[in-house]
Parts: sequence; C-alpha cells; structure tokens
Amino acid sequence: MDIPERVLQGDRLALARLLTWLENDQPRGRAALDALFPHTGKSHIIGVTGPSGSGKSSLVNRLALQLAQADGSQPARRVAVLAMDPSSPFSGGALLGDRVRMRDLMECPEIFIRSMASRGALGGLARAAGELVLALEAAGFDIILVETVGAGQSEVDIARLAHTTLVVEAPGLGDDIQAAKAGILEIADILVVNKSDKSGAESAAHTLAAMLEIGAELKAETSAPQAAWKVPVQLTSALNREGMVSLAAAIHEHFTWLNASGEWERRAQARLEDLFNRLLRERLYEDWQRSQPQANLSEALQSLRKRETSPYSLIERLFS
Amino acid sequence: MDIPERVLQGDRLALARLLTWLENDQPRGRAALDALFPHTGKSHIIGVTGPSGSGKSSLVNRLALQLAQADGSQPARRVAVLAMDPSSPFSGGALLGDRVRMRDLMECPEIFIRSMASRGALGGLARAAGELVLALEAAGFDIILVETVGAGQSEVDIARLAHTTLVVEAPGLGDDIQAAKAGILEIADILVVNKSDKSGAESAAHTLAAMLEIGAELKAETSAPQAAWKVPVQLTSALNREGMVSLAAAIHEHFTWLNASGEWERRAQARLEDLFNRLLRERLYEDWQRSQPQANLSEALQSLRKRETSPYSLIERLFS
Repeated sequence: MDIPERVLQGDRLALARLLTWLENDQPRGRAALDALFPHTGKSHIIGVTGPSGSGKSSLVNRLALQLAQADGSQPARRVAVLAMDPSSPFSGGALLGDRVRMRDLMECPEIFIRSMASRGALGGLARAAGELVLALEAAGFDIILVETVGAGQSEVDIARLAHTTLVVEAPGLGDDIQAAKAGILEIADILVVNKSDKSGAESAAHTLAAMLEIGAELKAETSAPQAAWKVPVQLTSALNREGMVSLAAAIHEHFTWLNASGEWERRAQARLEDLFNRLLRERLYEDWQRSQPQANLSEALQSLRKRETSPYSLIERLFS
Repeated sequence: MDIPERVLQGDRLALARLLTWLENDQPRGRAALDALFPHTGKSHIIGVTGPSGSGKSSLVNRLALQLAQADGSQPARRVAVLAMDPSSPFSGGALLGDRVRMRDLMECPEIFIRSMASRGALGGLARAAGELVLALEAAGFDIILVETVGAGQSEVDIARLAHTTLVVEAPGLGDDIQAAKAGILEIADILVVNKSDKSGAESAAHTLAAMLEIGAELKAETSAPQAAWKVPVQLTSALNREGMVSLAAAIHEHFTWLNASGEWERRAQARLEDLFNRLLRERLYEDWQRSQPQANLSEALQSLRKRETSPYSLIERLFS
C-alpha cells in the first residue's frame, strides 16, 4: 500500500514519513499531497502564538489533552500538534521539544505531536507549515494545533494558516504598550492570559480586555455592521491545569461562530490561495533560473557587487 | 533640485519624503534609489532585536545618543534609527513610537529617526526595510540602527540586513531554554543583557555566556579554524544610562573585526543579493499575472476552492 492510502487509514508511521518528505521539500511529498488533497479541509486548525515566557508550549500540551478527551458538550477528538521551533545548535531545537512533550503526551493515543524546525528560508517555513497542515488534515485529525514561537511575521503567517488564533500572554512580560506594539492583539480570536497563578494575572486580563474593547470600537466605526466575533479573554494556568475546560468551550464557541458567519469557508479559502501563491512564486523563480544562461547571471551579480549597477537597473536589463 | 540630489546633500525633508515613497512602494522611490545606489555601502548597519519586555526601544534610544557623541576613541557620528513596529490599531503603531522617541532625541541634530509600520505583506516588510536602509546609506549616515520587534522570521531577516546584530535580553523574561528555543543566540554578534539594575541580570549574563561558549565549541568542531568572532555579553541599563560606553566599544571592536576578516564585504554582498532576489521574485510574479488571461486564473482558483484540483496540479496545468 502506498503512503497516501496508509495516511488515510491512520497509519502514523506513514504520516511521519510524509511529514518528513514535506519538511525536506521532496517531490514525492508533493505528489502524495496531490493525491490526498480531496480529503483535506475538514479539520479545525487552531494557531497558538505569543511571546516566549508566556508558557505557550505547556499550554498547548494541556490544551491538546483537554481537547482529546470527551467532556459534557464535546466527544473525544483526534488532536495533532504541530510545533514550529526555530532550530538552534544550542538546544538541539525541535528534537528537545519533541522529547519534553512526548513524555507528557505519549500516553494518550489520540494525540499526535510533531515539531518542525525553522530553516530560515525565504518564506519557506510558512509554505512548508501549510503543507504539513494539509497532510495532518488528510490524516483525519479533528483538531490541529499549530504553535509558533515569537512575534512578528510568523504571527501574521499563523493567523493566515488557522481558523482560530489563540494569542497567549502572561503577567509580567513587559508593559501593555509592548503587547499593543507587537500588533499581536489584532490577530487574536481568543486571548489567553496564562500563568493565572502568578500575581498580576487578573489585572493583565482586565487591561487586555479594555484594549480589545477600544480596538473593537475602532473597527466598528470603520467597517459595516455585522455579527462580529467578540474576542474573549481566558485566564489559564497550564501548570495547575486550570481554565482548560473554559478555554476549550471558548474554542468550540468560535468554531460555531466560524460556521454560522461564513468565516470558516472564507479563512479556508484564503489559506489555500496563500499556499497556491507561494508555490506559484517558487515555480516562477525556478523556471526563470533555469532559463538564464549561468554566465549572464553571475556577470550581473558581479556588477551588483561592485555597485556599478543598482538592483533596479539590473532587473530591467535582465528582463529587457 | 530633485530628491536624490537633496538627499545626498543631507536634506532631511527630502530624505523623509523618499522614505515614504519607498514604504508605499512608489515607482519614483525606486527611481531615486537607482540614482542614489553608487553612494551606498559605507554605513555601518547595526540590527537590534530581542523579545518584547527587554527594553529594546529604550536601549536603541540611548545607544543612538551614545554613538552620536564623540568619546575617547571615536569621533561624533551621524546616526539614523529605523524602527520597525508592526502597525496596530490599538496603539497607533509606528506613530506613537515616533513621538515617544522624538521627545528624547529631537534635541540631538545628529540623529535621524524613522519608524516603519509592518504591513504584513508577503516578504514585503523585509524588502522595504532593505530599501529604506539603502536610502539612509545614501544620505550619509555613519551608523544605521535597525530595530525589529519580536522573534522568529523577522530576526533572521534582520541578521541578513545588518553588519552587526545585537540581541537584547533581560532578566526574568522566561527561562534559558526559551532563549535557546528562539534560536536567537545564533544570530547575535553582541549579546546585551539589558535592565542590569534588576535582580538576576548577572546570573542571566553568566548563563548566556556559558550557552554561547557551548555553541562556539559546537561550531568550531564542524567548521574550519579561522579568526572567529567571540560574541561578547554586555550588561546595560538603558534606564540608568549604564554600560553604554562599553557597548559602543564592543560595537566598534566588531566593526574592526568585520573589516579585518573580510566579513564586512561578505555581509554587504549577501544583503545586496537578498534585495535583488526579492525584487526579482516580485517582478516575475507581476509579469506572470499580467500575462495570464483573467478568466483563466479565476477559473483555476474556483476549482482550487472546491478542492477539485490540488494547488500542485493547478500549477502544473497553468504552466503546461
């Protein structure tokens, strides 16, 4: 049986192999995804982001366990976790992450964990992440948690990848202007103040709720009235396993809203078009490189290095 | 007199206008940069990055003042600050940043400040930042400080943009594994532990120094012996204006090393080629879009949305 079929039947070894192919950008990975594509689009993709020190990894860990088990309102679900850690020679990067998490989660057969090392490639991380998520969708997970480290561009990328974006904060991580400056509130569907056991958590939650309200008012002034989603602020303590039931309920509420408002479909389509655009840009670049006589290009780069020709003139020359 | 000439003569209004053109991706901005290009390549570009809460902005502020004034070993220098803050409807984003900094720095005529809002565009921020830096180089600044918010992809981008990368940490921002996980130490040329007035700063500095040493040993094992740069750990307190002379000296030492080792030229070239590649990819995409009959593309996207065709098959079809 080939890899796509085995993935569809829930074979984890086959899935792990496919994910490795995709991470390493191997053509057989894309061929498998091509076959699996009709089986994608049913999973609830939840992005989790926030600054380091917010206890994001522990929260994802706890949340996965919570979502995997049946509770009053929800049946047990199959959960995949995709953690994107920048690779580092200092920590062993993704590998360390896998081990730490594995210890907690390997006892739970409903949860699949995968760490993914950032390669620092131009747009490469986001593209590969999109492909790994597609593979996990085809493998039939009900929920896919995607965790990213840090702030900035990777946050914008994760918001594009997810149906629901959780932004995790914690008390004492710097003042409120810092949070606002990071632009992080804009992408939140649910705001989590983790480490609720620490002092200052309640007041951080209040401040953030107030900031969200101002933001919502600004938005309401500029956009048409509609059934808008009101971003809830959830207090959790991953350490003490507190607030997880309430957070799971908020996620389910957002899921319901996504479907009722048509946002589910809109976000799913935006994500597909994003992946398509990335693949398209790569293909154009590769085709162009192949079409150029090698001597041409190295001569051009030479004159760029000597600052004889600007990058702008150079491109005009190459395309004329 | 036209904008490029005025920029070369140090006209700040002309420079501000050019930067706006570049930020808004206007063709006349690129035309001006094309003319200015031969005058670029002489500034020392210093990237400053680190997690929010590390006091990065205050440090950049203090450092700009320090570098602008003559001290025992260095003459007074012209300093530009380019701060990249993700825009946010909550804080007014870049605008607020400008005002807060302006108050401190506007009394110093040797310092030019510019905030730049992230637009969340695909690779757009990094490309525009590269162009703004080129414009500042042409305007004759000796030193250009580029500050980015957060971790992740934007850090990798800043390391590509700079000759010297400062990574700013502070005590109490989460444990050491967090710092290592963020992969942030890899890109540091100088590691700054800010908020040295707070408890735990010394021990954070020691831990980070030890981690850097392990990293250096790992690198030494895998690469050829050469006159390597040993990343120093600098303790500063931007609040109490402490450690700034020593930090400026470390920056100057790195500058000397860059020139002696040939790294200056290597990094400058990598940066130029990076900008060229970004421009090239954009051009290829635009040309391709123009070449496609609109009906073709929207039909193709339609079948993607219905999940009838995978992104991979779609690209094969469009290119066959």
